[in-house]
Amino acid sequence: VLASDAATQTDPGMPVLLALVAILAAAKLGGELFERLGMPPVLGELVGGVILGNFVLIFPTWSFFEPLRIVPILAPWASAIDVLARLGVIILLFEVGLGSTVQGMAKVGASALMVAVLGVVAPFILGFFASWLFIGKLPDELTAAASPSFSLNYIHMFVGAVLCATSVGITARVFKDLGRIQTKEAQIILGAAVIDDVLGLVILAVVSGIVRSAELGQPLQISGILHLIAISILFLGGALAVGSLLLPRLMKQLSRLRTSGVMLVSALAFAFAMSYLASAVGLAAIVGAFAAGLLLEEVHFQGFREKISIHQLISPVSTFLVPIFFVLMGIQVRLETFANPKVVGIAAGLTLAAILGKQICGLAIRDRNINRLSIGIGMIPRGEVGLIFAGIGRTLRVIDDATFSAIVIMVIVTTLSTPPLLKWVLSRRQQLAP
Amino acid sequence: VLASDAATQTDPGMPVLLALVAILAAAKLGGELFERLGMPPVLGELVGGVILGNFVLIFPTWSFFEPLRIVPILAPWASAIDVLARLGVIILLFEVGLGSTVQGMAKVGASALMVAVLGVVAPFILGFFASWLFIGKLPDELTAAASPSFSLNYIHMFVGAVLCATSVGITARVFKDLGRIQTKEAQIILGAAVIDDVLGLVILAVVSGIVRSAELGQPLQISGILHLIAISILFLGGALAVGSLLLPRLMKQLSRLRTSGVMLVSALAFAFAMSYLASAVGLAAIVGAFAAGLLLEEVHFQGFREKISIHQLISPVSTFLVPIFFVLMGIQVRLETFANPKVVGIAAGLTLAAILGKQICGLAIRDRNINRLSIGIGMIPRGEVGLIFAGIGRTLRVIDDATFSAIVIMVIVTTLSTPPLLKWVLSRRQQLAP
Repeated sequence: VLASDAATQTDPGMPVLLALVAILAAAKLGGELFERLGMPPVLGELVGGVILGNFVLIFPTWSFFEPLRIVPILAPWASAIDVLARLGVIILLFEVGLGSTVQGMAKVGASALMVAVLGVVAPFILGFFASWLFIGKLPDELTAAASPSFSLNYIHMFVGAVLCATSVGITARVFKDLGRIQTKEAQIILGAAVIDDVLGLVILAVVSGIVRSAELGQPLQISGILHLIAISILFLGGALAVGSLLLPRLMKQLSRLRTSGVMLVSALAFAFAMSYLASAVGLAAIVGAFAAGLLLEEVHFQGFREKISIHQLISPVSTFLVPIFFVLMGIQVRLETFANPKVVGIAAGLTLAAILGKQICGLAIRDRNINRLSIGIGMIPRGEVGLIFAGIGRTLRVIDDATFSAIVIMVIVTTLSTPPLLKWVLSRRQQLAP
Repeated sequence: VLASDAATQTDPGMPVLLALVAILAAAKLGGELFERLGMPPVLGELVGGVILGNFVLIFPTWSFFEPLRIVPILAPWASAIDVLARLGVIILLFEVGLGSTVQGMAKVGASALMVAVLGVVAPFILGFFASWLFIGKLPDELTAAASPSFSLNYIHMFVGAVLCATSVGITARVFKDLGRIQTKEAQIILGAAVIDDVLGLVILAVVSGIVRSAELGQPLQISGILHLIAISILFLGGALAVGSLLLPRLMKQLSRLRTSGVMLVSALAFAFAMSYLASAVGLAAIVGAFAAGLLLEEVHFQGFREKISIHQLISPVSTFLVPIFFVLMGIQVRLETFANPKVVGIAAGLTLAAILGKQICGLAIRDRNINRLSIGIGMIPRGEVGLIFAGIGRTLRVIDDATFSAIVIMVIVTTLSTPPLLKWVLSRRQQLAP
């Protein structure tokens, strides 16, 4: 008793260590299994997480991972793991940005924009109708709680917004695992996903604004919405313009520093700063991380002491942090929710709407050399962005527990099904192309 | 308003990003300045942290870092930064362990044990009397709160315990920066610090146990104390014995895995697991991290796909995380406490006791080729262990706010003065030795 008391007091970081060991082991064992089965390791990391998180079904006393599964974070250690996972996503998108160039983005820019716009409009409309069809009536808990001006349409609008955003992480990882991150298809999807995030967040902000105004009984401020829309568009353009002017000079100054690790630390600090800026103007942090990667090119690091590429230098940090995000997503899957038939029905409807909505994206592509199907499939995963949106809806009490569970299932199914589908589509094309 | 609302909701990790950018910038700028002044960069990282944390004195509205300065962590983002700093210390001690070998440890084992025992006994006695002399009477808040069986001696005992533990991080970093981690002096200090931590934690557990028993009016369980003492001694020995038997087989199995990053992830997971085990048996996590590094040798990684040493592979992770710990320690310095003369008096007394107590260590060394003074000075810093001990004393209400501030000042002064003193002693010897 004395020993364990002292340990708890001297080291509040203990559960973090235990969780990290379990998460890293699950990531590597799951990844290895799927690698051997010929599937992308990222899927194995997700499944490893599902097993960790649902241990509790087999061993009801084992509730260790419970704090990680609750959307509003309660335990400090779970919040720390959550932060590590967020840093992992930021570093992943930073790496993806490093692998892309502005020239390459411009080449696919028009296609990416078309894909993104269709990929936001179509799922929003389909999601609205799927919600109308499957959820139907106002949930009991909302009927009591909501203000008189609260309409059922708000729920449908929110579900539509949840279906908009593409979570590019999974797709990027699959393309990276297959060594195809430089292909036109990957570049269109990544470009579209960035625009998608911007458009999705604008829709989210507008829908949230409408819901909040309705709850408060106040009219919606159009100026606020226009402000956000303007900021969203200006952010990437502004970052690229200002960055390409200032960055070469800044990097030249930094390369004069003598302390070790300047190159890695300044690259990470730049990625975090851009992510913070994106958050500060109301966008997703990952948009900033991607922009940071896009801005930083190898050429900027020529004067530095470290004779190693920035990609190689970041790699160990990403090897450590990125799997934490994917295992955490798996941990948050609640297998027991599948027992409720109503949840399964809503989930099936939303999943169908989510998948079909993004397939329309492929139609935006005119170039016959591009694998249309791989673009539609690459846009399917909703991942962390969908989960974040659903969490906000829950906080605003537009989305009840059953709908939330259904959304989580939709996110999981779209995320889990993308890697094998994408791998299949890409390998099929490879066999046809020679 | 709408934009910032949406950002706060979609990304609770925002303050973490801002704090990380500020911390990494302070670390590199402070490190660079001290490097150019010919002082160890780690001191610059501490001073960078002091400036960040005390911005609030110049700009009273700038209270951003306040949550990081409060011992019981309140804000989730501050707790996340705290966890990153803890992971940094674990990785630092893991690296130190990787740089040491069991053979090298055994060679200095007897000296290290002597140094450690003297380095615990002397500061405990000196600390007890410094507390008796400077703190004197029972603080007012305790006179009212404490149970009748609560004696003033408990305060002195607790202060004595706080002075016991050596924080090896700073010293290790200085030796590493000077390329002297392989010298006999460094090995004795590192070995002694590990034993010191064990002895210090045993004393802490015993003193905490006496205080708790007194508060509850229950007799102290001797069996609990003996149990902890036994566990402390068995941990390192057991870890080394079991580890050297099982580790080669485990690593051979792991080297067969095909997924990328297995080497780094398994090394980190092993370090975290050993740190967790050390915590679980009531020791400091860093003792486990050091033992993990001691067990893992390059030879274990021969079969892995990655053709890079484990030291090089861990280096970027440590470059990112280790400075966070040192900047955080600086942030927690409250410059305004120096305004209270009583606090300065207690702090001066404790600092003197802390420094003199460890100088007696040097007397344990008989070998005239060893720089005795560098050992006494290398043992001075109390760092994070002293702060953790003081925090526990505060929780147990043995240590009041004034004494706590004085302890923090003692920790800072011992920590800040060690690198220049150590550098001076080591360079003086270099000039004499030719």
